[in-house]
Amino acid sequence: MVEHVTENHGVGGSIPPLGTIAGRSQSGGLARTAIARGDERPNTIFDLSTPALLLDRKRLQRNAERMREKVRTLGVTLRPHVKTAKSIDVHRVISAGADMPITVSTLAEARHFFAHGVTDILYAVGIAPVKLPEVAALIRAGCKLRIILDTIEAAEAVRSFISAEGVRFEALIEIDSDGHRAGVAPGDPLLIDIGRRLGDSLAGVMTHAGASYDCRTRDEFEAMAEQERALTVEAAERLRAAGLPCPIVSVGSTPTLHYARDLAGVTEARAGVYVFGDLVQAELGTCSVDDIAIGVLSSVIGHNPQHRRVLIDAGFLALSRDRGTADVPVDWGYGAVCDPVTGAVIEDVTVSSTNQEHGIITSRSGAIDFGRFPIGSQVRILPNHACATAAAHDRYFVTDGGEDVVDVWERVNGW
Amino acid sequence: MVEHVTENHGVGGSIPPLGTIAGRSQSGGLARTAIARGDERPNTIFDLSTPALLLDRKRLQRNAERMREKVRTLGVTLRPHVKTAKSIDVHRVISAGADMPITVSTLAEARHFFAHGVTDILYAVGIAPVKLPEVAALIRAGCKLRIILDTIEAAEAVRSFISAEGVRFEALIEIDSDGHRAGVAPGDPLLIDIGRRLGDSLAGVMTHAGASYDCRTRDEFEAMAEQERALTVEAAERLRAAGLPCPIVSVGSTPTLHYARDLAGVTEARAGVYVFGDLVQAELGTCSVDDIAIGVLSSVIGHNPQHRRVLIDAGFLALSRDRGTADVPVDWGYGAVCDPVTGAVIEDVTVSSTNQEHGIITSRSGAIDFGRFPIGSQVRILPNHACATAAAHDRYFVTDGGEDVVDVWERVNGW
Repeated sequence: MVEHVTENHGVGGSIPPLGTIAGRSQSGGLARTAIARGDERPNTIFDLSTPALLLDRKRLQRNAERMREKVRTLGVTLRPHVKTAKSIDVHRVISAGADMPITVSTLAEARHFFAHGVTDILYAVGIAPVKLPEVAALIRAGCKLRIILDTIEAAEAVRSFISAEGVRFEALIEIDSDGHRAGVAPGDPLLIDIGRRLGDSLAGVMTHAGASYDCRTRDEFEAMAEQERALTVEAAERLRAAGLPCPIVSVGSTPTLHYARDLAGVTEARAGVYVFGDLVQAELGTCSVDDIAIGVLSSVIGHNPQHRRVLIDAGFLALSRDRGTADVPVDWGYGAVCDPVTGAVIEDVTVSSTNQEHGIITSRSGAIDFGRFPIGSQVRILPNHACATAAAHDRYFVTDGGEDVVDVWERVNGW
Repeated sequence: MVEHVTENHGVGGSIPPLGTIAGRSQSGGLARTAIARGDERPNTIFDLSTPALLLDRKRLQRNAERMREKVRTLGVTLRPHVKTAKSIDVHRVISAGADMPITVSTLAEARHFFAHGVTDILYAVGIAPVKLPEVAALIRAGCKLRIILDTIEAAEAVRSFISAEGVRFEALIEIDSDGHRAGVAPGDPLLIDIGRRLGDSLAGVMTHAGASYDCRTRDEFEAMAEQERALTVEAAERLRAAGLPCPIVSVGSTPTLHYARDLAGVTEARAGVYVFGDLVQAELGTCSVDDIAIGVLSSVIGHNPQHRRVLIDAGFLALSRDRGTADVPVDWGYGAVCDPVTGAVIEDVTVSSTNQEHGIITSRSGAIDFGRFPIGSQVRILPNHACATAAAHDRYFVTDGGEDVVDVWERVNGW
């Protein structure tokens, strides 16, 4: 793929310059290369105004297929978390066109996916009572939307709402499997108390072992995956022992699902970021850098020889402020710098700092070859955290790994 | 204001609980309190689904008036940077209805403000050649849009484009006044070279002393403001001495403008974040915490007594990943926690960590009073960096400092 694309560019030499718009302008082709956003379908990524979010569909397909196979092996249902992609078009690739349940992080996602035919939806953020009318509206429209909670107060708010509104809700109790964020400990009497208050609305238990992001070795990941499974299954068994129903036992994070060896007692697994991968995931070993399916196309807008900096027009609004790789072995700053078409990483350089609409590329070695980054040329920046970077954009410009833009897919941001 | 609002809430005691939706639900009022986004105008902030971006119009007016007065004293034109608010409605307050020029960070902002009647616009990010057709489209439509650049290559791209397209461009040369990011040093022969290549298109010089954010004492701020002024004026004089026109001499950042004592030789000053203020600005002394005009309304969704955490439904997508206060004397984590109506800071607690849609409130002392944060109640989170936090939202819910929502103002995000 790399060689094919390099040929397309018609550039030679062992270190070809990046795809250049500036070069094109000299042949008189510039006037047609930039479009006002949303006006028309671009032909290639070089028709795009920058910054712009690129999505490599082939990498997405590969990542999606790998996870489907993994979950098939584990014998559970995959309920992908669409908070990463927030796009029905991406979901169609993830699900390979099948009828697949989803996890959402916002009710805006729930409305978007339900409007596009996805009916089995888990809203996996502890319910705020103020949102119950929005949940009810979706349920009344036919959406099988389930909520989660982990407090007596939320269970009572749900019970009061059901009583007042006459709508049927289903809720999962969130279990704390790692001390990382939310949830009830499986052995806490609160679990049974919440379950009893939910009564008919109790549909099961769920957890998210976010502490998996702190693991560094395979043994640690496998142990965390087993802990996530075991504690959640324990909670389910305690509820059942108390005479309460617990049909759903839901676990998951991209790292624990990637490293899980057995999910006995679990009914469904959730993961989100695996669809795109990112630099943090690559450091955690759940994907390789070559699997990362999204990147921010950006133009080189300045050179600063004195400070050995290349300036690009992707700042923290296009890349996000996420510094996730500050906490993993290799720190990529605000992102890895790549060839715009092939996505091949340019060694030694990173986006080391950002302002709102500026990114500053520097090198780890201190030297920088400005000839590699002509003014007006493009780079692709791989994200630290795909969920954060994608959320900065309202659409994906889809490629099949080359320079052609084969589709434009919209995202549903906000709440 | 605080007492008035507390009375409106009808809650007593020395530490009133925050405004509670959960409490309302018990009185049967919950069903009407949450609305689907964009459906109708909310009456009060308690009608809003969370998270939601609040804007206190009175604070905005105060901040805007203070800066207009400061710039009047300095005898220059104010060209506010609309990258912070990205809203024509906010600009109407900033400008007090006058015809005021603006600075933009994206061409999406330029299109939005031009469509609403603002014609004098500086696009203050080094131009990427790919964007020249978008710039030309605005100029042809009658917008007095100026661009900036600091390289021979960009000047040549502009010259070639003008020659091919027959459209008149004006450009400012970006000056490096602080070694912080971009620009040509005033004494660099490159300055004159770029100026000559621009020819008739040269309209002046501009700088942004972003290094002002590293200042900590009044003396340092004042020295940086003077350095920003002096080096930019020096660049203008060198261009003029070479026989080149330089009518515009543009400087600015919120800190340097706040601390500037004299702007001799400068024609216009730019600043953005002063309109809202934020926790970083409060630490830099350009505003007080009580001046901060925006905050993210969020619901309490969980308690974790074991780890002394309160969970809210504003995570890094609603607050941004900005950790600007990590670099100033007082670190506010991901934001200061306030009463939802008054905006009064609740002492001792901060949003200490975030996930995508979760914020975790902990206390500096280690103790936390869960009774202060009932499940379903709301808090308002003040931002580290107003530009980053506001960019996570597509609209402002405007108040006059009370609980009533008096207007809804849209933002223009993206590019």
